[in-house]
Amino acid sequence: MMRFLKSGPCIRDARWILFGAPSDAAVSRRGGAQYAPDAIRWESLHIETYSPYLGEGLEKASFFDVGDLFFVPGDIQSSLLKIEKVTSSFARKGKKVFMLGGDHLVSLGSVKGVLSKFSDLHVVHFDAHADLRDYYLGSKYSHATVMRRVAEQLASPRHLHQFAIRSGTREEIEWGKRNVDLHLIDFLEPLKEVLGKLEGCPIYVSLDIDVLDPSFAPGTGTPEPEGVSVTDLFKALRMFKGHNVVGFDLVEISPPVDVNGVTSVLGAKIVREVLIMLGGDSVDQ
Amino acid sequence: MMRFLKSGPCIRDARWILFGAPSDAAVSRRGGAQYAPDAIRWESLHIETYSPYLGEGLEKASFFDVGDLFFVPGDIQSSLLKIEKVTSSFARKGKKVFMLGGDHLVSLGSVKGVLSKFSDLHVVHFDAHADLRDYYLGSKYSHATVMRRVAEQLASPRHLHQFAIRSGTREEIEWGKRNVDLHLIDFLEPLKEVLGKLEGCPIYVSLDIDVLDPSFAPGTGTPEPEGVSVTDLFKALRMFKGHNVVGFDLVEISPPVDVNGVTSVLGAKIVREVLIMLGGDSVDQ
Amino acid sequence: MMRFLKSGPCIRDARWILFGAPSDAAVSRRGGAQYAPDAIRWESLHIETYSPYLGEGLEKASFFDVGDLFFVPGDIQSSLLKIEKVTSSFARKGKKVFMLGGDHLVSLGSVKGVLSKFSDLHVVHFDAHADLRDYYLGSKYSHATVMRRVAEQLASPRHLHQFAIRSGTREEIEWGKRNVDLHLIDFLEPLKEVLGKLEGCPIYVSLDIDVLDPSFAPGTGTPEPEGVSVTDLFKALRMFKGHNVVGFDLVEISPPVDVNGVTSVLGAKIVREVLIMLGGDSVDQ
Amino acid sequence: MMRFLKSGPCIRDARWILFGAPSDAAVSRRGGAQYAPDAIRWESLHIETYSPYLGEGLEKASFFDVGDLFFVPGDIQSSLLKIEKVTSSFARKGKKVFMLGGDHLVSLGSVKGVLSKFSDLHVVHFDAHADLRDYYLGSKYSHATVMRRVAEQLASPRHLHQFAIRSGTREEIEWGKRNVDLHLIDFLEPLKEVLGKLEGCPIYVSLDIDVLDPSFAPGTGTPEPEGVSVTDLFKALRMFKGHNVVGFDLVEISPPVDVNGVTSVLGAKIVREVLIMLGGDSVDQ
Amino acid sequence: MMRFLKSGPCIRDARWILFGAPSDAAVSRRGGAQYAPDAIRWESLHIETYSPYLGEGLEKASFFDVGDLFFVPGDIQSSLLKIEKVTSSFARKGKKVFMLGGDHLVSLGSVKGVLSKFSDLHVVHFDAHADLRDYYLGSKYSHATVMRRVAEQLASPRHLHQFAIRSGTREEIEWGKRNVDLHLIDFLEPLKEVLGKLEGCPIYVSLDIDVLDPSFAPGTGTPEPEGVSVTDLFKALRMFKGHNVVGFDLVEISPPVDVNGVTSVLGAKIVREVLIMLGGDSVDQ
Amino acid sequence: MMRFLKSGPCIRDARWILFGAPSDAAVSRRGGAQYAPDAIRWESLHIETYSPYLGEGLEKASFFDVGDLFFVPGDIQSSLLKIEKVTSSFARKGKKVFMLGGDHLVSLGSVKGVLSKFSDLHVVHFDAHADLRDYYLGSKYSHATVMRRVAEQLASPRHLHQFAIRSGTREEIEWGKRNVDLHLIDFLEPLKEVLGKLEGCPIYVSLDIDVLDPSFAPGTGTPEPEGVSVTDLFKALRMFKGHNVVGFDLVEISPPVDVNGVTSVLGAKIVREVLIMLGGDSVDQ
Repeated sequence: MMRFLKSGPCIRDARWILFGAPSDAAVSRRGGAQYAPDAIRWESLHIETYSPYLGEGLEKASFFDVGDLFFVPGDIQSSLLKIEKVTSSFARKGKKVFMLGGDHLVSLGSVKGVLSKFSDLHVVHFDAHADLRDYYLGSKYSHATVMRRVAEQLASPRHLHQFAIRSGTREEIEWGKRNVDLHLIDFLEPLKEVLGKLEGCPIYVSLDIDVLDPSFAPGTGTPEPEGVSVTDLFKALRMFKGHNVVGFDLVEISPPVDVNGVTSVLGAKIVREVLIMLGGDSVDQ
Repeated sequence: MMRFLKSGPCIRDARWILFGAPSDAAVSRRGGAQYAPDAIRWESLHIETYSPYLGEGLEKASFFDVGDLFFVPGDIQSSLLKIEKVTSSFARKGKKVFMLGGDHLVSLGSVKGVLSKFSDLHVVHFDAHADLRDYYLGSKYSHATVMRRVAEQLASPRHLHQFAIRSGTREEIEWGKRNVDLHLIDFLEPLKEVLGKLEGCPIYVSLDIDVLDPSFAPGTGTPEPEGVSVTDLFKALRMFKGHNVVGFDLVEISPPVDVNGVTSVLGAKIVREVLIMLGGDSVDQ
Repeated sequence: MMRFLKSGPCIRDARWILFGAPSDAAVSRRGGAQYAPDAIRWESLHIETYSPYLGEGLEKASFFDVGDLFFVPGDIQSSLLKIEKVTSSFARKGKKVFMLGGDHLVSLGSVKGVLSKFSDLHVVHFDAHADLRDYYLGSKYSHATVMRRVAEQLASPRHLHQFAIRSGTREEIEWGKRNVDLHLIDFLEPLKEVLGKLEGCPIYVSLDIDVLDPSFAPGTGTPEPEGVSVTDLFKALRMFKGHNVVGFDLVEISPPVDVNGVTSVLGAKIVREVLIMLGGDSVDQ
Repeated sequence: MMRFLKSGPCIRDARWILFGAPSDAAVSRRGGAQYAPDAIRWESLHIETYSPYLGEGLEKASFFDVGDLFFVPGDIQSSLLKIEKVTSSFARKGKKVFMLGGDHLVSLGSVKGVLSKFSDLHVVHFDAHADLRDYYLGSKYSHATVMRRVAEQLASPRHLHQFAIRSGTREEIEWGKRNVDLHLIDFLEPLKEVLGKLEGCPIYVSLDIDVLDPSFAPGTGTPEPEGVSVTDLFKALRMFKGHNVVGFDLVEISPPVDVNGVTSVLGAKIVREVLIMLGGDSVDQ
Repeated sequence: MMRFLKSGPCIRDARWILFGAPSDAAVSRRGGAQYAPDAIRWESLHIETYSPYLGEGLEKASFFDVGDLFFVPGDIQSSLLKIEKVTSSFARKGKKVFMLGGDHLVSLGSVKGVLSKFSDLHVVHFDAHADLRDYYLGSKYSHATVMRRVAEQLASPRHLHQFAIRSGTREEIEWGKRNVDLHLIDFLEPLKEVLGKLEGCPIYVSLDIDVLDPSFAPGTGTPEPEGVSVTDLFKALRMFKGHNVVGFDLVEISPPVDVNGVTSVLGAKIVREVLIMLGGDSVDQ
Repeated sequence: MMRFLKSGPCIRDARWILFGAPSDAAVSRRGGAQYAPDAIRWESLHIETYSPYLGEGLEKASFFDVGDLFFVPGDIQSSLLKIEKVTSSFARKGKKVFMLGGDHLVSLGSVKGVLSKFSDLHVVHFDAHADLRDYYLGSKYSHATVMRRVAEQLASPRHLHQFAIRSGTREEIEWGKRNVDLHLIDFLEPLKEVLGKLEGCPIYVSLDIDVLDPSFAPGTGTPEPEGVSVTDLFKALRMFKGHNVVGFDLVEISPPVDVNGVTSVLGAKIVREVLIMLGGDSVDQ
């Protein structure tokens, strides 16, 4: 088994637990997200451990890559339950989780798991799509409904903060405006403002790679034009410095429809920057 | 909606019903079979209606392409039930079904549907893999267990006739030898013999494209070397002339991993040849 | 036949007529534009009908997708004539046309068709290339000469307004500067100014996808670096709000050389935004 | 300009003239044949000059690669005329021509050119498709009608000898059986017999790469399953040893839809074997 | 690190040592062979451990996959030396080696290593190319010279037995006929005869995947048409049953130019069949 | 042999010499740079000779494309020596060199060659990676160490000016900060400043295409996110107007991992703009 670049030697002392959730269960246009965890690990071996942006390297980060969860193909409910149990178990041991999807539905499992420890959790969601439908293609459990389900789990739907959303049905956008903290199209400005109010609060970040413009991240199941730039995404991520981030996921990278692995390389760099930035924090929980 | 080349104008008078079962639910290596029905239809528009081998054309065949069933992504059980209901309904109206998969699991639904009319049905199965496991990756419902499940449905497991199988676990091969009519590696000789005994019996043919050598059919989820040749496959298909074939499926073509559509073109030609050969029969049922 | 997302049920009441012009006749580097209309339709089924940018959905737009014109392969003149006749016929019935190319030469046919109703037509042209040669590779009819031919048809060559042009021979650039309203490299500023002068005038928009930087639209026959951004393109399109746009074409998307369909997805989104924005207008003609 | 492996230094003394006809004008499914001449040349530089089958090398062959003809994109008639003139000119100087297509329509030009010197020419045609339609997609000039046009040019339609044909409409197959020397599906046996009768006669060979099974030649516009094997094709080619072959073409290789250039490599090897075998002949004409 | 399917738990008791030699140093047409070892391992996880051909499974085989050697990019001599040392070390411990290339030059290292124990070693070589040049592109060390170098190392050049060779310069073919046991084009017949004479002798098998026809193995650097079939290759491999094979390599699979991994799948199956067949042998050495 | 667009007719009067260095010897992630020179030449034939940005065309530039150097595969030292000799020879004849790589290591050869004439040479280096390691994968000669080696050759390491670097180990970044003129991440501002100080000095520009964001240049061996934009790159290049640029290289374009040739097209445009801008200069040397 390949591990992510500079993964620590064992689970015991690691502050962050990295794991893969190689699920493709709920695809509407193009699949392939199940291959993302290994593609991101492979690319991580071809980037540096050191970040010139942060002036620090992964040595500083305390994390362990436990590998991929095993899912029964096509059995969504058992996969979600497995993610929830694993995440909950880690959270209750005081560890933070970094999950590599998989299609976006996996976030429902990990958010539920983290909620078992942090009942007042806030979810910060970056995505092209609102993912707020009640049903999609006949199902309540889909990458298009996942944030509706997440909102139902949180202490208040207002604990769901969505940014840079640029696609949705009229119904979900209107529902979102009424019920959650939805920011259409706008990104850095409202994020800064919201984060200002969340100081000290436990935060889970869910990053769907398609929040980026397809020019930066072509390898994803449902690319949507007019996305944010890579520069702005990293600016956003760096805003979390000092915040109490207790969980993070990176989803919807699809290696089979990528070009030269650039989307997986980007995924590896996102993981590196987040782990360096947050992986040495000693905020008590 | 695209229809298969020379589909009749309406369902009423058609002897054969062609439909797509665009499922990808149970994939172990590479997905993409959900795109096969439309790829096969598209390629059908680029081949001729006339078969120089048979000296006849599709005009002779009485069939109607009803399009694809709609499946809730990831909900295998409801997909199988839908296939079963649709197939059963057509069978009871005296029609024959030609299903375009989709991963191989869909065959369980269609066989069950046809069984509702023909309880003494025989299944002739061409495949690289035995598909006789009891469980695969934790599930009873998978493209690797489908023929075990099919065998359980038939009047006798001996009604399952498998040919050209060249891959399986020791357990499933041994189970197969004891319980079903399993022919390892051998193809045309035992097929001829078996068909000789099935005259007049209702037959369902399940054709997994990976029975062919990957040189002929690279576009499939789990290619297995040392397969049969296209020439032999067509020889086999032509042996069914005059037999009471009441259902047929063609599964596991995966367009995204194909080269220049050659596997889908082959699929379209298989459909054409089968429909010309069997589509005008007037065997009473 | 697949229709574009939310196409109306019939032609009679539709204000806009969408049709495909699947031509590849005049290719210099890479072909494949003939596959664009169907690729754009397929992708349209995977985006939303609702535009968060406009706060409106395609329900508001009155349009009908009549499918593709049939062209005799390689017979450019008959294809152009067919486009002209069809477009002219629609224009004279008070309908507006939205043509999906095809290589850029098809615009000559549609502009001529629209001119049969609006003799004072203005053409607004977005492109990387000036397309103003008199001859190209020995022919007067090519995607590199099309705007020279268009200029010859208009009431005045000055009715041709070109923006963001960043490639051309010295001869055509100089000819363009003397004869038409050519804007080299510059885009939004001069467009705003020109549109200010065209209020009420009948306008035909010809959008060659390669006006975009290849990072946003790699799937095109002759990609040219240093193009405009997707954000700027949509800004430009939104400037037409309230203007009397009577025809529109989107050309030179080439699906076979694209990555993950991102250029076709973009095409589908352009069509959606334009139809929502202009499809409900009731400007009298 | 790249030349074919071991092309002689100049045209004067060369017995055979090799040239490219990079035409894509008449495509029905997938284009790309215009890129074949250069792809074949590039691959020729990666194979050996020596043939272990023949025990001879290309040094023995007297030929010169003059490069590609220039065609006005989309102007089929002028392209055909250019091919005809060039071929005729070479033929009348006592040279033999080897043309690399391009789509199959180019053969009409070269056959007409060769006919200007050899009015009793016989054409031996290897193809998956009969290419005997009178019209195709509204045109008399297409890769699907080319052999009907060729038959009309020959001293007698019976001078057209077709082998291994496995696709066609009922009409063209029946027309072919009545009018030309058409051999459905069968290949080596009838070829041997026919060649036996053509001793000394001037022969033009037209080889459409899709006569091969798509497993051997996936890179072609309209792949058709159940084709001949590479071994049989080379057996067929070697039967021409000692015959008076005065022209040869190799058409319909399409590099953009190939895998790893295997179809172009095969093309290069065909050219090599034919030129070694026939390129040193001193049959007087 | 991924290990090959059913690799034993440790090196100590393993009779066979499997290792990767991920070299690409000496490429003439297309590279990518450095990615083969991992691609073959990955595909091995998607085939069965059991061989229906042999009626046995990999459980029977005693082997351990030690992973890949590390090579300094571009330093051929140090890579060869490393292979030689490792192989020699294993051979002297009574172990047999199975090397996954890498370009063919790696065989020089492993043959030298095995020779340190078995000075009378015979090398059986399956390849499209003779690889007998003295120099290639200015170098004595290349995948085109490797068997010349190997022949120089053996007790006698006649200990090199080459089969199915179908490409070479006149010089190398003639040198080969005079000096080594070269079999042009012919395969199974002479192999049977040669093996009959080698009973008990230590044998090293070097299998260049391009001995196969490109239809079966498109993913290789220099595909050569008219190769042997997969069926014949497995027939050949099964002839080694009972022979004293002390080393084996499989080289020149190139995953980046493959289609759907079929060449790597084939590689995995070759490894499996060889290890089952020879991996339990107890011939004393 | 293909030559770059508008190459002059002969070497004698050319001020600039363009040549290819098709090396792939030192690859860490993905190879393919050896195919770049021909890919760039091919694409150059599909862009215009005229630059609308500069208002001038390539006619103005005095240059000759001498083709590619021949390298012994895998023999890095001899390749570097060959580059050095050729470059030195041209430099001493008063010519300037434009080298198309190849992997980045080739720059070491050309810088050394130019140094033989201009001992006080300054090197301006645009890259994502610092390339300042002392060893990489066990070697002193690698695309990851090349600028360390270059720095050792210059009159002072401070003559190496690096811009837009965004990846490196902690060690090389720190070494770079202490020893060379390293600008992390920043690009246009420090470049302007540095160029201000280099007026009249002989300058060699080394442009690794991965300095660009992978959205603009996906076809490269080690893509690194957060790169500079194409617009900024051209701004940077245009700053060299009037400077004494005596050598230039463009490296690390990898056509096999590109999409639709966009990175090679960009390469061709870079060459054109640089040659137009600098190719007619008459600065004495």
